Amino acid sequence: MKALIKEKPTRGAKFTDLPVPRIGDHDLLVKVHAAAICGTDIHIYQWSEFASTRVKLPFLFGHEFSAKVVEVGKNVTHFQKGDRVAAETHIPCGHCYQCTTGLQHVCKDMKIIGVHTAGAFADYAVLPAVCAWKLDPAISYEIGATMEPFGIGVHALSKTKPAGKKVIVFGCGPIGIYAQMVAKMSGAEYVIGVDISPERLDLARKMGTDIVLNAKEVNVVEEVSKVSKGLGMDIVVELTGNKGIVNDASKTLRRGGDIVLVGLFSGSVEWDLVNNVIYKEANVYGVTGRIMWDTWWTAQSILLSRKIDVTPVITHYFDLKDFDKALQLAESATTGKIVFKM
Amino acid sequence: MKALIKEKPTRGAKFTDLPVPRIGDHDLLVKVHAAAICGTDIHIYQWSEFASTRVKLPFLFGHEFSAKVVEVGKNVTHFQKGDRVAAETHIPCGHCYQCTTGLQHVCKDMKIIGVHTAGAFADYAVLPAVCAWKLDPAISYEIGATMEPFGIGVHALSKTKPAGKKVIVFGCGPIGIYAQMVAKMSGAEYVIGVDISPERLDLARKMGTDIVLNAKEVNVVEEVSKVSKGLGMDIVVELTGNKGIVNDASKTLRRGGDIVLVGLFSGSVEWDLVNNVIYKEANVYGVTGRIMWDTWWTAQSILLSRKIDVTPVITHYFDLKDFDKALQLAESATTGKIVFKM
Amino acid sequence: MKALIKEKPTRGAKFTDLPVPRIGDHDLLVKVHAAAICGTDIHIYQWSEFASTRVKLPFLFGHEFSAKVVEVGKNVTHFQKGDRVAAETHIPCGHCYQCTTGLQHVCKDMKIIGVHTAGAFADYAVLPAVCAWKLDPAISYEIGATMEPFGIGVHALSKTKPAGKKVIVFGCGPIGIYAQMVAKMSGAEYVIGVDISPERLDLARKMGTDIVLNAKEVNVVEEVSKVSKGLGMDIVVELTGNKGIVNDASKTLRRGGDIVLVGLFSGSVEWDLVNNVIYKEANVYGVTGRIMWDTWWTAQSILLSRKIDVTPVITHYFDLKDFDKALQLAESATTGKIVFKM
Amino acid sequence: MKALIKEKPTRGAKFTDLPVPRIGDHDLLVKVHAAAICGTDIHIYQWSEFASTRVKLPFLFGHEFSAKVVEVGKNVTHFQKGDRVAAETHIPCGHCYQCTTGLQHVCKDMKIIGVHTAGAFADYAVLPAVCAWKLDPAISYEIGATMEPFGIGVHALSKTKPAGKKVIVFGCGPIGIYAQMVAKMSGAEYVIGVDISPERLDLARKMGTDIVLNAKEVNVVEEVSKVSKGLGMDIVVELTGNKGIVNDASKTLRRGGDIVLVGLFSGSVEWDLVNNVIYKEANVYGVTGRIMWDTWWTAQSILLSRKIDVTPVITHYFDLKDFDKALQLAESATTGKIVFKM
Repeated sequence: MKALIKEKPTRGAKFTDLPVPRIGDHDLLVKVHAAAICGTDIHIYQWSEFASTRVKLPFLFGHEFSAKVVEVGKNVTHFQKGDRVAAETHIPCGHCYQCTTGLQHVCKDMKIIGVHTAGAFADYAVLPAVCAWKLDPAISYEIGATMEPFGIGVHALSKTKPAGKKVIVFGCGPIGIYAQMVAKMSGAEYVIGVDISPERLDLARKMGTDIVLNAKEVNVVEEVSKVSKGLGMDIVVELTGNKGIVNDASKTLRRGGDIVLVGLFSGSVEWDLVNNVIYKEANVYGVTGRIMWDTWWTAQSILLSRKIDVTPVITHYFDLKDFDKALQLAESATTGKIVFKM
Repeated sequence: MKALIKEKPTRGAKFTDLPVPRIGDHDLLVKVHAAAICGTDIHIYQWSEFASTRVKLPFLFGHEFSAKVVEVGKNVTHFQKGDRVAAETHIPCGHCYQCTTGLQHVCKDMKIIGVHTAGAFADYAVLPAVCAWKLDPAISYEIGATMEPFGIGVHALSKTKPAGKKVIVFGCGPIGIYAQMVAKMSGAEYVIGVDISPERLDLARKMGTDIVLNAKEVNVVEEVSKVSKGLGMDIVVELTGNKGIVNDASKTLRRGGDIVLVGLFSGSVEWDLVNNVIYKEANVYGVTGRIMWDTWWTAQSILLSRKIDVTPVITHYFDLKDFDKALQLAESATTGKIVFKM
Repeated sequence: MKALIKEKPTRGAKFTDLPVPRIGDHDLLVKVHAAAICGTDIHIYQWSEFASTRVKLPFLFGHEFSAKVVEVGKNVTHFQKGDRVAAETHIPCGHCYQCTTGLQHVCKDMKIIGVHTAGAFADYAVLPAVCAWKLDPAISYEIGATMEPFGIGVHALSKTKPAGKKVIVFGCGPIGIYAQMVAKMSGAEYVIGVDISPERLDLARKMGTDIVLNAKEVNVVEEVSKVSKGLGMDIVVELTGNKGIVNDASKTLRRGGDIVLVGLFSGSVEWDLVNNVIYKEANVYGVTGRIMWDTWWTAQSILLSRKIDVTPVITHYFDLKDFDKALQLAESATTGKIVFKM
Repeated sequence: MKALIKEKPTRGAKFTDLPVPRIGDHDLLVKVHAAAICGTDIHIYQWSEFASTRVKLPFLFGHEFSAKVVEVGKNVTHFQKGDRVAAETHIPCGHCYQCTTGLQHVCKDMKIIGVHTAGAFADYAVLPAVCAWKLDPAISYEIGATMEPFGIGVHALSKTKPAGKKVIVFGCGPIGIYAQMVAKMSGAEYVIGVDISPERLDLARKMGTDIVLNAKEVNVVEEVSKVSKGLGMDIVVELTGNKGIVNDASKTLRRGGDIVLVGLFSGSVEWDLVNNVIYKEANVYGVTGRIMWDTWWTAQSILLSRKIDVTPVITHYFDLKDFDKALQLAESATTGKIVFKM
């Protein structure tokens, strides 16, 4: 089969042929139909420290995907050939404290598809049955491939109650925009999106964000104070992963409000906790992945309700062989979601 | 001043002249601009048992209102002549356990304007400063007069998290419709409204309710099962006050879902708690009034966001002198909100 | 093997010989070491309507038990011969909405051991691996057999935050007493236990309940008002299943408090919802079973902490052949837990 | 009257005579009976940057106190001469968003007694009626003076549900010990206290903390892992204000656990949020002061229940004139609470 692999510990990737993988007793073999590019894939392509400390070469990457089941492991029930599925990328062990108390997505011994196990930038992939979500017939493979990142936005906002509240999201990358869309459809009084890419701010505005702020052009803290008439934001969602903005982000929060941290910082963050968290009595929620399967049910309901249309968040489609173009575009941080169709 | 009073312990009311009331040190004297008819007012007009056991004659009634401040009690701070206000009708004592723990709206020694103290179907009214909410300039007196009942809908849904959830509201009177609108703007996957009045079902549909069911024409339990593909509702809101429907209402709920009880039943309800609450592990929330002032802030944010427009829920306006026509229309249970303009 | 079965649709049971059962691929065969008598077992013994509409004869009953694994189904991982286990009696399907959102204990297609599948009043039993909890070495088989009912008490209180709160539990049967013990060790200001059996009230007092009230001798509503200086209870737990007391139970609640319903009523309950739930803005939580496995982890932690000692709640031990004596004692409603040792 | 004041911008304080203060219409004049030393008082005594940027000289300090009412402002209701009271030190404005939504303790325009207004290290003090809590007759003035810091411990744990959970508290100063006591009486499986003062660790052990760790002698992260058999802590409470330990503190937390931040750091904290908050999906709660009056009601209930006895946490009593000895002992960070009796 055709596959995109990381072969050498330097920038780049290689489009090559691999044998179709063999599955275990608890797995599904799936024909991949669509796979989206995630920040992790960019790290692997760039061979950043994040990637080099986690990934063993050679390696088939890619993990946000949808597919059709073509073979079923012998201990798998409830799935059969022909099922259309989307992939949850967190593989829970099923037996630790977290896995036995509804927190599989932060399993103590978690593995991640496309990081710890072979990924899906290929014609076929191995999907553990415990990570397979049946796609509703009304949801296309393309949208299905983005349910994983969309789910992060859903999960992030689920820590809060946005109805009638003021919400600001730092970061207008795809997940930032998903979070803004979820906040808005959840009844936020208004949603503010912050970024430094004009293209991404345009996309956020197009997708319905009420106010967009370019952090290069305005003082976000002052602007938010003005917009909110001094009240401050009820909910702050951080999705840039830029450690320089945490203090400003939390300065926009009103006393007693909620902060959701999702973006991944490189290294420790210098945070004035006394003024921005303790004296404010802020609630700060770390968010990673999606609750299995609560978030998926909610994400599906939102998509089926047609309250929001996430189709335009996918701004580019590519063939897998054009991976260089796709990944370089992704690392420009100016686009929406980029999807390989297979 | 002109005023609508209940004079005799029989059906009816009387439009008459009264002296402008005198205020206490902690009160505001206000010029009433709009006052809406509530179910309680119908009870007083009809002189039902509910009314006769609570109200002492003669009595000036009406309590959903907005007004302009014309005189300020000497111990009142933060209000001044000319302020536009809406009235919270629950007068908290300020000192009981409930009042000192954020539950003023269920104060142990609560009094209610228009039930225990003189009301607002008149040119002027006495409003305790502790019950006055400053109207935002963007909110008209007419809408301001309905913030009290609208707030019940906001408060009812605030017990739940409707985003991506299936919501059913039993009752399409004004508060039922408000609840449906709030559920929808809070991101419900879909909202079902149930009633037996074709006019009210039409109004619900016009205001955006996704599915309306006439309980006289369809089997609601079966219909909900069909619509939800057997999953059942995540959230059930009861606003009919019809004790005959509580079992059916809770039968539409999925296991692990939320029931919000708001409608006032006459007498005890026969409820199959084992099958509808215990085995389902349902959460049941009693709701009355509005949280002071959390609900008002949220209600204001929703109105200012223009996510929903509650104007058409007011279906009729009357002069106070046409009270008989107005109250008889109200008791037909076929309309939206009816408002007196003064 | 020796086994206690229900053979005929009349009062009674039969101690007999049965073949050791064969297990499926996902099951464990276990040697039963201790099995406690539950209310359900009394129903089956009495052949009440509850039993006759659920159970198909002939039938091996009993479901609160601990055991040692003697054979492991071929698809079972993480268990091996010699493991000491306690049984969760709710068998979840694993695939419905509830099972995929952390609510396995209210699975839509749930089966119950000893009701829908063969039970454990026998030398050996079949235990689905999905229902097996590994017993900590510090927990005996006797206590292990009562972790199932103890878990109900743990789960019931987990809906609330008892620290510094006033708690009343209606019912001093074993689960009622467990609930009282959990409330007290969770920091309740004081715990009141209510029953009509002097023996059970004595046991409750012995186990640490601060105040016991005999509902035959005192007016509970008045007594609670006196004890709480008119404040009322913060938390009411109903464990009698006596539908005649629901109104009184909820009358003891303060406005804004929590009611937990656990006891199973026969038929519908006449409840004055307006005065006892809606005007009070009470939160009512239906509770059944135990959260898998959150409740078990918590129950284990409590037992290991030695903050409470549940050993004396087991007031009687019997050999299985003395079942008549044991079950008749159980139906007297005057004892603590009764355990068969095997 | 006798009073302890800060006169000069250098280390030290002055015991002097001042006129008895005059009260405003909404205040109480109170005869101080007991006043405890807080970390803020040490800052003022030392004239640290924290103090010099907040306090204007000359200044009467001290704010944790209990007293008897001797004069009542003319607009004050519900208090009268002779009432025994304890002081809430946060003076809310009463009108901002926070004050009108149950968050008075994080009022946007909050003032603090003994920081922004004259304090209570004196024979008499001015107490705004809105900050007065009536002492239950069963609670002494000495204990009453410590309800303010005790309330911080109560409030900190109220963000969590300690029953059956593993709790670690960093810091065994008075509030740290209060937090440990509250965690234990709230049913924690076990409570670990961490400090570097042998005296404080001894006091923690004496007050009932299950395990004490001297951070100078053991590797806390490793020790916690051993004690918890690799599970990690469910709840971490930070009360040292030592910014160097935040990463280690959060490393002891299990995935999905709760962190409560109470201690005040000097300057920004370098926190590895990705590994310690985001990937763990930790919930982090900033805590300051006490919820008005929810925390006070709970604190009172706990004291009245006699579940814990906070008397021995007061390790030293002094006359006000011996302030130098008292404050120097306080800054040694080796004692429990130090109280002036007046």
